[in-house]
Amino acid sequence: MTQTTQDTLLRLAAVIDSRKGGDPDASYVARLFHKGDDAVLKKIGEEATEVVLAAKDVRQGGAPASLVGEVADLWFHCLVALSHFGLSPADVLAELERREGLSGLEEKALRKSRERERDGD
Amino acid sequence: MTQTTQDTLLRLAAVIDSRKGGDPDASYVARLFHKGDDAVLKKIGEEATEVVLAAKDVRQGGAPASLVGEVADLWFHCLVALSHFGLSPADVLAELERREGLSGLEEKALRKSRERERDGD
Amino acid sequence: MTQTTQDTLLRLAAVIDSRKGGDPDASYVARLFHKGDDAVLKKIGEEATEVVLAAKDVRQGGAPASLVGEVADLWFHCLVALSHFGLSPADVLAELERREGLSGLEEKALRKSRERERDGD
Amino acid sequence: MTQTTQDTLLRLAAVIDSRKGGDPDASYVARLFHKGDDAVLKKIGEEATEVVLAAKDVRQGGAPASLVGEVADLWFHCLVALSHFGLSPADVLAELERREGLSGLEEKALRKSRERERDGD
Repeated sequence: MTQTTQDTLLRLAAVIDSRKGGDPDASYVARLFHKGDDAVLKKIGEEATEVVLAAKDVRQGGAPASLVGEVADLWFHCLVALSHFGLSPADVLAELERREGLSGLEEKALRKSRERERDGD
Repeated sequence: MTQTTQDTLLRLAAVIDSRKGGDPDASYVARLFHKGDDAVLKKIGEEATEVVLAAKDVRQGGAPASLVGEVADLWFHCLVALSHFGLSPADVLAELERREGLSGLEEKALRKSRERERDGD
Repeated sequence: MTQTTQDTLLRLAAVIDSRKGGDPDASYVARLFHKGDDAVLKKIGEEATEVVLAAKDVRQGGAPASLVGEVADLWFHCLVALSHFGLSPADVLAELERREGLSGLEEKALRKSRERERDGD
Repeated sequence: MTQTTQDTLLRLAAVIDSRKGGDPDASYVARLFHKGDDAVLKKIGEEATEVVLAAKDVRQGGAPASLVGEVADLWFHCLVALSHFGLSPADVLAELERREGLSGLEEKALRKSRERERDGD
């Protein structure tokens, strides 16, 4: 049986969900949930910065694997945030599908970009 | 036929890859690639902040769909960054797999957390 | 007469304050205020990322002036955020003073760091 | 004698500068310097996210003092970054002055905004 990406993200999300109400001393994810919204969300900001730093290092000869690892950390903490707010990666992937492929995404990005122009920002 | 998550991310990545060297005036993604590293990476920081803002709004009664949309934007721009640096979402998902499920991820997070303690940060 | 830093930040804050309720089409700051909380706060995230990118470039031979410019942008948008939430840079500087110089700041940072250790994060 | 803002920032910067090469176990700032560029820059991303979170809480009735404290943390870590890259807050304040008050800053912001429009981003 082929291991799909969907399996990876959905299985991770299921394990993360199972940590809710768990022992904060026994599980990193349970501890994040226990600390609450801001602890969960701070990780998004932190990991995004680490992605940026790792990417700049790749351009200077750093190992691409470190960028892969930082994106993995960012996506992992996105899964924690989704779970914390009662959502699933399936919702995100459905949204990406709903935008009907990249052309749809580009339309959205272009639309936002045009709104920004109109607003002068 | 089941549409899997893997299909979604890998298909998106393939479309994004196809924008390389494309007309910056015709495609949002081609324009990002054309602008270069910093333009691509700024989007990671911007979209991460938008995820944080949307999540705080959800807690105050905002629509969960807006959080889903912002995570979709963040993941989309992660795909653009991965492509820009010659990587694939398959690399990220393999890394998540490599960490052997959540227990592995938690071990890594706990290890980093202990290193941080040791370093006093 | 010596132009002091205080003059700079407080004078800027006064001009920013004066933009409240102004014509969004005539003033960048008035437009940010008009757009509301999230527009103001997104700029903090954006400009922080630009500081990080510029600093990495300085390390690779980039002009230090670009890092100075990005920190100036970040501080400027902090002043806009402070004003938007009814606060002043004088409050921030008083807080920095209140921490009794760097030793106080370091004590705070060390305390947070120890709390983080205790929490295992 | 009036304690000016300039005194605050420049005095802090002097104390921060004095931590260079200091004992990483005795000083939070010496430890950041010792860890290097990425440790210093990660704090910019982290503290920016904490400013955003605190500001959203103020809007929901949270204490404005917490926003003041987070901006103080952000500015403090900007001072650390400036020092780490051989710069001074005086450079940033001179840049803010150089832009000739808010009108100059607004002109710059409007120019960037127009460039963004032209680039369609």
